[in-house]
Amino acid sequence: MTSILILNGPNLNLLGTRQPEVYGSSTLGDVENLCRAHAESIGIEVEFIQSNHEGVLIDHIHAARVSKDGIVLNAGAYTHTSIAIMDALASVKLPVVEVHLSNVHAREGFRHRSFIAHVAIGQICGFGVKSYVLALDALTDHLKL
Amino acid sequence: MTSILILNGPNLNLLGTRQPEVYGSSTLGDVENLCRAHAESIGIEVEFIQSNHEGVLIDHIHAARVSKDGIVLNAGAYTHTSIAIMDALASVKLPVVEVHLSNVHAREGFRHRSFIAHVAIGQICGFGVKSYVLALDALTDHLKL
Amino acid sequence: MTSILILNGPNLNLLGTRQPEVYGSSTLGDVENLCRAHAESIGIEVEFIQSNHEGVLIDHIHAARVSKDGIVLNAGAYTHTSIAIMDALASVKLPVVEVHLSNVHAREGFRHRSFIAHVAIGQICGFGVKSYVLALDALTDHLKL
Amino acid sequence: MTSILILNGPNLNLLGTRQPEVYGSSTLGDVENLCRAHAESIGIEVEFIQSNHEGVLIDHIHAARVSKDGIVLNAGAYTHTSIAIMDALASVKLPVVEVHLSNVHAREGFRHRSFIAHVAIGQICGFGVKSYVLALDALTDHLKL
Amino acid sequence: MTSILILNGPNLNLLGTRQPEVYGSSTLGDVENLCRAHAESIGIEVEFIQSNHEGVLIDHIHAARVSKDGIVLNAGAYTHTSIAIMDALASVKLPVVEVHLSNVHAREGFRHRSFIAHVAIGQICGFGVKSYVLALDALTDHLKL
Amino acid sequence: MTSILILNGPNLNLLGTRQPEVYGSSTLGDVENLCRAHAESIGIEVEFIQSNHEGVLIDHIHAARVSKDGIVLNAGAYTHTSIAIMDALASVKLPVVEVHLSNVHAREGFRHRSFIAHVAIGQICGFGVKSYVLALDALTDHLKL
Amino acid sequence: MTSILILNGPNLNLLGTRQPEVYGSSTLGDVENLCRAHAESIGIEVEFIQSNHEGVLIDHIHAARVSKDGIVLNAGAYTHTSIAIMDALASVKLPVVEVHLSNVHAREGFRHRSFIAHVAIGQICGFGVKSYVLALDALTDHLKL
Amino acid sequence: MTSILILNGPNLNLLGTRQPEVYGSSTLGDVENLCRAHAESIGIEVEFIQSNHEGVLIDHIHAARVSKDGIVLNAGAYTHTSIAIMDALASVKLPVVEVHLSNVHAREGFRHRSFIAHVAIGQICGFGVKSYVLALDALTDHLKL
Amino acid sequence: MTSILILNGPNLNLLGTRQPEVYGSSTLGDVENLCRAHAESIGIEVEFIQSNHEGVLIDHIHAARVSKDGIVLNAGAYTHTSIAIMDALASVKLPVVEVHLSNVHAREGFRHRSFIAHVAIGQICGFGVKSYVLALDALTDHLKL
Amino acid sequence: MTSILILNGPNLNLLGTRQPEVYGSSTLGDVENLCRAHAESIGIEVEFIQSNHEGVLIDHIHAARVSKDGIVLNAGAYTHTSIAIMDALASVKLPVVEVHLSNVHAREGFRHRSFIAHVAIGQICGFGVKSYVLALDALTDHLKL
Amino acid sequence: MTSILILNGPNLNLLGTRQPEVYGSSTLGDVENLCRAHAESIGIEVEFIQSNHEGVLIDHIHAARVSKDGIVLNAGAYTHTSIAIMDALASVKLPVVEVHLSNVHAREGFRHRSFIAHVAIGQICGFGVKSYVLALDALTDHLKL
Amino acid sequence: MTSILILNGPNLNLLGTRQPEVYGSSTLGDVENLCRAHAESIGIEVEFIQSNHEGVLIDHIHAARVSKDGIVLNAGAYTHTSIAIMDALASVKLPVVEVHLSNVHAREGFRHRSFIAHVAIGQICGFGVKSYVLALDALTDHLKL
Repeated sequence: MTSILILNGPNLNLLGTRQPEVYGSSTLGDVENLCRAHAESIGIEVEFIQSNHEGVLIDHIHAARVSKDGIVLNAGAYTHTSIAIMDALASVKLPVVEVHLSNVHAREGFRHRSFIAHVAIGQICGFGVKSYVLALDALTDHLKL
Repeated sequence: MTSILILNGPNLNLLGTRQPEVYGSSTLGDVENLCRAHAESIGIEVEFIQSNHEGVLIDHIHAARVSKDGIVLNAGAYTHTSIAIMDALASVKLPVVEVHLSNVHAREGFRHRSFIAHVAIGQICGFGVKSYVLALDALTDHLKL
Repeated sequence: MTSILILNGPNLNLLGTRQPEVYGSSTLGDVENLCRAHAESIGIEVEFIQSNHEGVLIDHIHAARVSKDGIVLNAGAYTHTSIAIMDALASVKLPVVEVHLSNVHAREGFRHRSFIAHVAIGQICGFGVKSYVLALDALTDHLKL
Repeated sequence: MTSILILNGPNLNLLGTRQPEVYGSSTLGDVENLCRAHAESIGIEVEFIQSNHEGVLIDHIHAARVSKDGIVLNAGAYTHTSIAIMDALASVKLPVVEVHLSNVHAREGFRHRSFIAHVAIGQICGFGVKSYVLALDALTDHLKL
Repeated sequence: MTSILILNGPNLNLLGTRQPEVYGSSTLGDVENLCRAHAESIGIEVEFIQSNHEGVLIDHIHAARVSKDGIVLNAGAYTHTSIAIMDALASVKLPVVEVHLSNVHAREGFRHRSFIAHVAIGQICGFGVKSYVLALDALTDHLKL
Repeated sequence: MTSILILNGPNLNLLGTRQPEVYGSSTLGDVENLCRAHAESIGIEVEFIQSNHEGVLIDHIHAARVSKDGIVLNAGAYTHTSIAIMDALASVKLPVVEVHLSNVHAREGFRHRSFIAHVAIGQICGFGVKSYVLALDALTDHLKL
Repeated sequence: MTSILILNGPNLNLLGTRQPEVYGSSTLGDVENLCRAHAESIGIEVEFIQSNHEGVLIDHIHAARVSKDGIVLNAGAYTHTSIAIMDALASVKLPVVEVHLSNVHAREGFRHRSFIAHVAIGQICGFGVKSYVLALDALTDHLKL
Repeated sequence: MTSILILNGPNLNLLGTRQPEVYGSSTLGDVENLCRAHAESIGIEVEFIQSNHEGVLIDHIHAARVSKDGIVLNAGAYTHTSIAIMDALASVKLPVVEVHLSNVHAREGFRHRSFIAHVAIGQICGFGVKSYVLALDALTDHLKL
Repeated sequence: MTSILILNGPNLNLLGTRQPEVYGSSTLGDVENLCRAHAESIGIEVEFIQSNHEGVLIDHIHAARVSKDGIVLNAGAYTHTSIAIMDALASVKLPVVEVHLSNVHAREGFRHRSFIAHVAIGQICGFGVKSYVLALDALTDHLKL
Repeated sequence: MTSILILNGPNLNLLGTRQPEVYGSSTLGDVENLCRAHAESIGIEVEFIQSNHEGVLIDHIHAARVSKDGIVLNAGAYTHTSIAIMDALASVKLPVVEVHLSNVHAREGFRHRSFIAHVAIGQICGFGVKSYVLALDALTDHLKL
Repeated sequence: MTSILILNGPNLNLLGTRQPEVYGSSTLGDVENLCRAHAESIGIEVEFIQSNHEGVLIDHIHAARVSKDGIVLNAGAYTHTSIAIMDALASVKLPVVEVHLSNVHAREGFRHRSFIAHVAIGQICGFGVKSYVLALDALTDHLKL
Repeated sequence: MTSILILNGPNLNLLGTRQPEVYGSSTLGDVENLCRAHAESIGIEVEFIQSNHEGVLIDHIHAARVSKDGIVLNAGAYTHTSIAIMDALASVKLPVVEVHLSNVHAREGFRHRSFIAHVAIGQICGFGVKSYVLALDALTDHLKL
């Protein structure tokens, strides 16, 4: 069975309480439930992890190398600053879908640059928690090819 | 019934023949059929248009103001250069989903800037023709809120 | 009798419906009427044209070369991106007054650059539809010298 | 009766003697007379001041806060360098029309940036002394709204 | 018989009347005659087209895909701004020679950048109408290899 | 009783031994004692934490959301690179005072940019350990308003 | 007795009337009274001066060289543009504390650069009139070392 | 006996499996063995550590301050982004040799900047695992001086 | 008799007391005496003025228009920031020699740009008070041609 | 008889052995023979020189001033870095055609800038050794005008 | 027997007398002796050359193409400015080790860019004359693979 | 007796014939004669050299180290591009006066940067051949201190 790691970066644990006008009112628990339900409906399994630590995120990416078929990654603010996460993704050679709750391209200039994009198959951003569902569809579709 | 304009910019008429290693082998007719089938399955209707002319794209965006509920826009190369299309979208105030076949953020630097993004709810890129299906889902989901 | 082309670029056809907090509530028809009335009062004649197409705007500039004494140009978003319109104006060597409804210098950075300015005698911006009346006065005054 | 401050910055006292090929042959006295005549014709009163001192210009802007209805400002070279004058204008909250004799946007690059523009309702430049008359019209029109 | 599209962009229809000190006094008709005569002398045939419309130029490039062996392109001002034309050329995969009447590298900075160059085999600029003749020679020579 | 988190970033644990010519000879223990004594004298309580780990700092900021009234933050080198810490502060919506031992604006260019500043009420830098005492005063004063 | 010059730059005379949402409702007279009261409480004396003139500010800095022990400087907009004031401060070699009412680092980009910072011992910004009190404390503390 | 810390940053644990065309086929264990063997041959001792966590790397640098004579540091991607690691190295004042497996100066532009270089005695890059052996020689030679 | 204005900008009144390691130990009075002695020896007369006020410097430049044959200008820090002084010099059309005590091109980057240079015949910098003597020679020589 | 200097810069002596995938397999001797044959066919004479030394190239340009009618210059890498060669060409005032074997505008960014272009009548690049033949035609044509 | 060219660029002939605090007190003769001794010890032969002339360095690189197995290159200041030397190295396709006495990455910004690096296998810098010995080891090791 | 090297860079041998509107009509021989006459009048001796070769200029600078007391250097275009000449001057540690015939700061932007300035005591430019005489005075004056 296709197994996907859904990896969440810094501050996403505060989802629902953090700037709801930007990120919406769902909690990260809600997102996980939504993802699990959708995964079940399309016949895949998901692991759902969040960490505020760049190094921990790298460790999880490394671990996914042999246990997962792909990664849905919301790297949060590390998207714009972490060459190390980009290198980690390049190292494990799994297909990656980059996802963001908000439309990062319509926000501050420093959120327009993504190191993740250099090694991802594609990007989905701006659709709130729906972004995750779309990312699971996109990644599953990609794995079927 | 929800009605969506799927608007395609320059060179997309050559899809399938144009650099298949970047854009895939589906033709624009295939994309239209795929979109129509998916629209039917989720109970919406779509209009599917392509033009190589910036002005014609603007005219279609204007026309959509009273006849459509939202726009899925693949502005092609105009994404990176057209403030006029951005202004047209801002004028009609319809929800817009920006879509690209390739992951523009992983290509040449001049493809990283999007004027469309300033007025779109979100962006989906990198998943080939599947990007359109995801965009229809995202826009439909947005319109339900 | 002095004859002036008043040429309007992309999205100005939506005037009145488009972001009235930025551009005011007058329609382009209102602007045309205002210009015609003012032209009559100062004894000149005007032709009033709008197009969303860069190429059509260039064609009209070319046509004005032999039939008009000067141009009042609101090139809209093409102001900031079109070297081709700048070259067209340089080719016909008519006096040009650049006009904008809003104060472009107080908006986004990409609206601060004007290619039109390189070949215009002057610029009037920020006074809504009144900008056109002032531009007609300025151009008529210039032609008298 | 509407009362407007016409404020002139550095080097404008040399008008007529200074680079006539750029700024024309009228003297500042001519400009003042022209403005006074036009003001009378449209039923407003004007105060006409020139100074080469940035601080003096700021003092006059402050003084206008309670005694004037608006400001026509030709800040000369300070347009491009003075955040302090911009802040002074923001402090007094009077409507300001930015005016220049020459088309600053067609000259050296360092004349393209205007700090004044951030706090002005609009800009008129390139029409020589006629720029002042247009500015009075524009400001009077604005005050009537 | 080798068949070449000679495609001319914005403002080239005014050749001869437009800034003769920069572009010379030959008209576009003269250029076409010169090209046709030279083509005949080297045993190839040419189609000669001009348009001020970016979209029309793209359409002609697309049409050349199956009917022509190569393109001599003077994209005029679009050279410096049109990613869409660059993409069109990349799509049709015909050999392209970029040509300019003036030496664009010796003019304003914004004329130094060429998007066309990324997909052309070479560039010839600065020799007035002679540039076209040289371009035909270069392209014919290239096609023989 | 008002409770404030004093959070210290990377390398501050070496205070006193690290480049005393830049940072002074007090140890971090001295700073903590000074802060505790001052807090007592003004009737507030403080928690004093240091970590070299960006993720740990984010975790502490999150934890402060419900237990603290404000944060005094010396983010050290992360000040200049961490969008993630900026986002964490924006998420918890507590008043933040940014503090530095040295005058960062007088050092290398890469220390002039602060992501923290975007979400802080103010900044105090350059006064060595006294900076902390001033920050406690500033934050307490702010909380009283 | 320690004697400190508190020097205020352009537009600070309008404090209280100028953009109270940014700068608060205290007048400059209030600030002076606050500073005098605080100075008395910590046993120092202060001179309190404001000018809109860059040259006058420089003259006062020069005069302080022999009569004062240090300077608290709110140079207002000149902070970002005046190398001359920076040089004046370097010339007199008195300790300087840079102070701002608002958090300049969270405002427009052109307010992020401070020439003053190159020659100041430290900076305090964002705490409204309280910034002055903190600056007096910081400077007094510095003078005791 | 001279004791050296060999510190390895993010993703180096995947050495041998990660992009072997860039980094070679040796594992990190191989590198450690090679270093230990070479250390023995030149009469020094080494500690060999790897972590993906920026904070952990800083902690190890701090710990080395009293227990080690120098550091060979391959900071991986943190080389280009971590001011915090640079500051840590500056704090402990040990001689540092910067090492990279690949020639970072021949790769993407964002890999050309090294914060580590500001505080290192020298840099060795591009020689694969041999880079470490050369770094041990260089550092040992430096310590003898 | 040839009459030259020697005009000195901000902070030069502190010469001798201000950073003698950069500017030398001569006072401005010494410079004036040196200049007067040298002027006498070469048969010209000089007026010697210093002001810290940009506006006053402009006023003196204007006054020189009819009373002087040339200007030796040490504009101090205003060299790098004042377009207004540049414009004043352009207005009076006198030959100007730019002079600096220190070699500004070997100091901070923001001292490398000179607005004065655009309108000066030449520049002499780095020779301390001797720079003035050389400037008088250069200007006198120029006036003889 | 028209006499032209064909001047070749650094590394062109290795033509044929140097990166044939970029520069083709002809040797510089082949190029010389091709040029001589073509020169003879169009009734001009050529001198053909190559040097790796910037100074030698300048010497040859100087020598051409009185003995030649024009220069075909392939300055190789000096094209992008040598202001001295540009100045040499400006000094001798001969017509110059800039030539390159490869399409430099489609290669690394640092090859896009040409100092030669500022003083050349035109540029031909990208057609391999054919570029020289075209350049001879272009220069001969130019000399006839 | 493996034969290596050790090539030294401008100013290295002054080694020992030139800024010993930066470059050490060994002369270039000492470096040559050190290299020869080390070469003998590892069983290779070296040729040791220095020139201040860019063209001469290029000539030596060309000559090495058939007579040497690799190059150790200290291009001195040409490292940062010479595209011609880079092209020469690319032409001969020998393995190159870039070497510097000082840590160029810790010096002025214009020394951070290396054209040599684009075509070298690796770089060793900062270890004084020891850098050469390490470079010989690195290159020999590379040639064995 | 004080002995000074007057060193002239590329294209100065063409002085008098080269762009006399920029550089004047004196030949380099005239300059040499003028310098020799002036040197004699002030009791020093000069050596006068010109070369178009960067390497030769460096060799002469090196040679001056033991035989000369100072250098007057007109490096021509190498001023703006040669780090190697800058390093040569730093190596020999002689006082250097940078001289230019034209006012380089009023010409193209790429002539504003001087590498020579970093190691010169001062700069004299814009006074034609008189610049050399002033430079001899300045250097002699400097050597007397």
